[in-house]
Amino acid sequence: MTRIESDTQTFPEVDLPSQDVWSAVPPAPPHPDQFKLGPEALDPAARMRALDGLNAYLDYRRDHLLGYQVNEDMNAYRQDLSRFLTKHVNNIGDPFQDGGLKVNSKIAEQAVLNYFSTLWHGAAYDPRNRESIWGYVLSMGSTEGNMYALWNARDYLAGRRLLGEDGTDRPVLYQEPMIANVNPNAYKPIAFYSQDTHYSFAKAVRVLDLPTFSRYGREHYRDENPLGGPWPDEVPSEGGPEGKPSTYGPGSIDVAALAKLVEFFAGKGHPIIVSLNLGSTFKGAYDDVRQVADTLLPIFERHGLVDRVVEYEKGQSDRRRGFWIHVDGALGGSYLPFLRMAAENPKYDYHPPVPVPEFDFGLRSATPTVPSMDMVSSIVCSGHKWMGSPMLCGVVATKVKYQMQPPDNPEYIGSQDTTFAGSRNGFTPIVMWDHIAKNSYDRQVSLTTNAQRMAEYLEQKLLGLQAQKESTGKPAGWMWIDRTPLALTVRFRRPNSAIVAKWSLSTVSMLMEPGDPMSRRDLAHIFLMASATPEKIDAFISDLHADNAFDDHVAPTIAAPSQTFGGRALSATTHFADRGFA
Amino acid sequence: MTRIESDTQTFPEVDLPSQDVWSAVPPAPPHPDQFKLGPEALDPAARMRALDGLNAYLDYRRDHLLGYQVNEDMNAYRQDLSRFLTKHVNNIGDPFQDGGLKVNSKIAEQAVLNYFSTLWHGAAYDPRNRESIWGYVLSMGSTEGNMYALWNARDYLAGRRLLGEDGTDRPVLYQEPMIANVNPNAYKPIAFYSQDTHYSFAKAVRVLDLPTFSRYGREHYRDENPLGGPWPDEVPSEGGPEGKPSTYGPGSIDVAALAKLVEFFAGKGHPIIVSLNLGSTFKGAYDDVRQVADTLLPIFERHGLVDRVVEYEKGQSDRRRGFWIHVDGALGGSYLPFLRMAAENPKYDYHPPVPVPEFDFGLRSATPTVPSMDMVSSIVCSGHKWMGSPMLCGVVATKVKYQMQPPDNPEYIGSQDTTFAGSRNGFTPIVMWDHIAKNSYDRQVSLTTNAQRMAEYLEQKLLGLQAQKESTGKPAGWMWIDRTPLALTVRFRRPNSAIVAKWSLSTVSMLMEPGDPMSRRDLAHIFLMASATPEKIDAFISDLHADNAFDDHVAPTIAAPSQTFGGRALSATTHFADRGFA
Repeated sequence: MTRIESDTQTFPEVDLPSQDVWSAVPPAPPHPDQFKLGPEALDPAARMRALDGLNAYLDYRRDHLLGYQVNEDMNAYRQDLSRFLTKHVNNIGDPFQDGGLKVNSKIAEQAVLNYFSTLWHGAAYDPRNRESIWGYVLSMGSTEGNMYALWNARDYLAGRRLLGEDGTDRPVLYQEPMIANVNPNAYKPIAFYSQDTHYSFAKAVRVLDLPTFSRYGREHYRDENPLGGPWPDEVPSEGGPEGKPSTYGPGSIDVAALAKLVEFFAGKGHPIIVSLNLGSTFKGAYDDVRQVADTLLPIFERHGLVDRVVEYEKGQSDRRRGFWIHVDGALGGSYLPFLRMAAENPKYDYHPPVPVPEFDFGLRSATPTVPSMDMVSSIVCSGHKWMGSPMLCGVVATKVKYQMQPPDNPEYIGSQDTTFAGSRNGFTPIVMWDHIAKNSYDRQVSLTTNAQRMAEYLEQKLLGLQAQKESTGKPAGWMWIDRTPLALTVRFRRPNSAIVAKWSLSTVSMLMEPGDPMSRRDLAHIFLMASATPEKIDAFISDLHADNAFDDHVAPTIAAPSQTFGGRALSATTHFADRGFA
Repeated sequence: MTRIESDTQTFPEVDLPSQDVWSAVPPAPPHPDQFKLGPEALDPAARMRALDGLNAYLDYRRDHLLGYQVNEDMNAYRQDLSRFLTKHVNNIGDPFQDGGLKVNSKIAEQAVLNYFSTLWHGAAYDPRNRESIWGYVLSMGSTEGNMYALWNARDYLAGRRLLGEDGTDRPVLYQEPMIANVNPNAYKPIAFYSQDTHYSFAKAVRVLDLPTFSRYGREHYRDENPLGGPWPDEVPSEGGPEGKPSTYGPGSIDVAALAKLVEFFAGKGHPIIVSLNLGSTFKGAYDDVRQVADTLLPIFERHGLVDRVVEYEKGQSDRRRGFWIHVDGALGGSYLPFLRMAAENPKYDYHPPVPVPEFDFGLRSATPTVPSMDMVSSIVCSGHKWMGSPMLCGVVATKVKYQMQPPDNPEYIGSQDTTFAGSRNGFTPIVMWDHIAKNSYDRQVSLTTNAQRMAEYLEQKLLGLQAQKESTGKPAGWMWIDRTPLALTVRFRRPNSAIVAKWSLSTVSMLMEPGDPMSRRDLAHIFLMASATPEKIDAFISDLHADNAFDDHVAPTIAAPSQTFGGRALSATTHFADRGFA
């Protein structure tokens, strides 16, 4: 490991893996014919050749991955954890109930959940403490966690009955509340999220048939958009500098616009679901959870959403809040807590350019009449992004007081069906446990501040390249270099498709001025995960210095699908706001 | 490997792994304190001790697993595939579009999908062939696949617009059809599934807000249940012998009752979703897909559901069928095709006690006016059950003609968001590929017929034990031994909780006569997967010969949660129909 000198500062020696990024000739991708399956088994030698070829190809691709927010630093897992590949490990059912299937890793899963509970300023799980944190390790990644949290939010706000309240020995079906005549909208929650939100949210609300303010507004209040004009698809993101549109902005939600929209629907009697981003998928932006919470609480209070009585048949009732703030921390949830520690503890000598956002179960807001209220109801984070895992995983967390009764109560699995899937991946909780067991808070702080330095380093390198381009006649700012403060990502003009493919860059075409095709920018970004080493960045920058590095991206299409992978061209050339990778 | 003699027949030598089932003293389970995570990293030696302890414990549990339908035979994966743990492999987006993230294993995923397409008598994926089979490898197991298929079915039958029909460069939002005044129910699908269906279906229909015939019937046609009496929760399963209730039956759907219920709702103008089981989770039963299809087609035809015109704004329209038959082949989907080959090809000399069911895309029905119609719209199967995989996986498959437009069209990932998750597990497609590459049709046939013989072997052993019990004064049939024809499972009187825990048995308490507590049976079952070897069965039977083997199961509760795993007792002592493990 060598000490890296950037244009502006010295980068300290860091303990990161050295991967081979200098391969002059990449391995040939494997051919589909090698993988074709049929009635006959493959000859063992042919099978191994196919696996060898795929492995070498994936190694090369891994060593050049820069465009997605996944940490590819995980060589140690093979040595320590491959022995768990010799059995099917399955965490079926509730993570805190052992269940009938004994080949499970719930002991590791529970440790991981309690670690995150503490990291997120909540109490470790205790079924008797309704403020404590319950959750589970995800098999399908943050999309599953977001879907699960929104499902829970929908049914909680719709007034359906909660886990364990019935007390009889019959399976509890959901019990619907009695509709108060005074407010027909009392149990019709409305969802809000920003235009920078990951595309899986649009999918989740459709799966759940959960109305967004946009859909519900168009159907019921066509000409009453409080922001004026037609209803937008999503809550606007903050505008750019000097009055420019949000395409030039940092990617965080426009809190004032959100407040107006929430005020409108709360005023109509609806409960409110707000989902906020913590490291959005293209710009890496953070919604200001603290500002959102402080701004919305008075609105919730004004419209009776802080504490409601939900009435059921036979005089039974429940008290619940009428709002739910969800935090999609797919990337930021496992990384920002350490950046916050770095900023708060002088020993780390870290001085962030903007305050590190609060976002977790410890965040409390107040009004003159509500002295202190915990505002965040659920958090999701991925395990394969910041931490790194050979396969997707993550954590969803909420409080015991919000848990919903599962639709059935299977004695069969010996543990309640409280999660989204029945079977659950038992390997990834061991991976997450192993990563945490090896990385102290101190080391995590070091990794996060290092990632910030790497982002600065890349930005400086790109600015250096841009200065060179400008000196040879390109217009000022030709490279479109931008970075949202504290984000792990830097965005810039998209290079040619060979470079895009080599480094697995993700790209977006945006009309910076709505409706003006001349304002189109074809952009790429890089995520500075722990596996994005200075050596890798240098190799990438070296590629960008090629004469034709920015030549062939005229068509607004995606990188051409690889012939060998049997891909087909997409017909759509959609221009859409900043989205990303779940 | 030795030749095994049973009471009634000779079992041939088979090539199955020998696992250590004779451990007199099981390893102590790991203690949660060993796994506790916090601000400090674990000492490396302590971390390895924790992993060592968990691994040894899981090995023991794996070697004694008999109660769940997972194949634990997978020692070879560690050697061949652990190298894929050195990178994050992610099949984000459509499996047949390469996409921007190059560290993917879609080449293996495509091969696996096309293998199943052929196995299930469909055409390999070709986007230009609307009859060809599209699908993907699941990250969350069959629950994800069932949810995805039901979501697709719901939106298809609700008349929403299909993938790629728009042709413009704007992201296509779902377009709702115009409601025909003549039939207000034309786009309100109703779901049907049997009382033996896995509990994840009750969850899926709630997540999707998809009305079942039961819920919709109670709300809209309270006193009109065509079966008489109050609406049941689910479609009844077949009755037992001699007029006994369905608790004594094989566990397959009562086709006559289904037909009456479907006739009622089709007559009201509703489109119909029927989900059928192929290896139900407790009894291992098969719904008769052929009989269901042949019985329902004339009903669909009579009510205009075979071919409908869906009309949109601006005079646009689409032609679609008004029904959807889904097959949950979590277990049977990867196993029955080979049993069918065994029965159909004389060279295997296999003579099933009942016909092996048809269930796949090759199944066609006819009426006097509909000459030949393909009846099955989607199939799901798990990869970790019959085949075996260290972690959950599976396949969902449907036809190109049914695919729905994803809610957004992300250029970012360079491939359309056609699947349920964004990120998808890239490791398990390699596991499934590897298993298939090593196991020819011939070998699969051998494994399936062997599993049938193992089920017979276990049944014989249990009958032998029962005869011994009867000879010492127990009533006839005291062991409640039962096996649905062709099922991989045998059910019997539940042994004591130590035995239940040792062998990871799954258990159910049933009232055989509804409402009669005296008729309660506490049952357990064993699944005869490829890892259930004769040695393992012998060791299990040996445990059942202990004097106290059936002593302590008085309380109708589940096996007590392990203290060391921090589990808590369930309050509910639910009696419910046969459910199971996803």
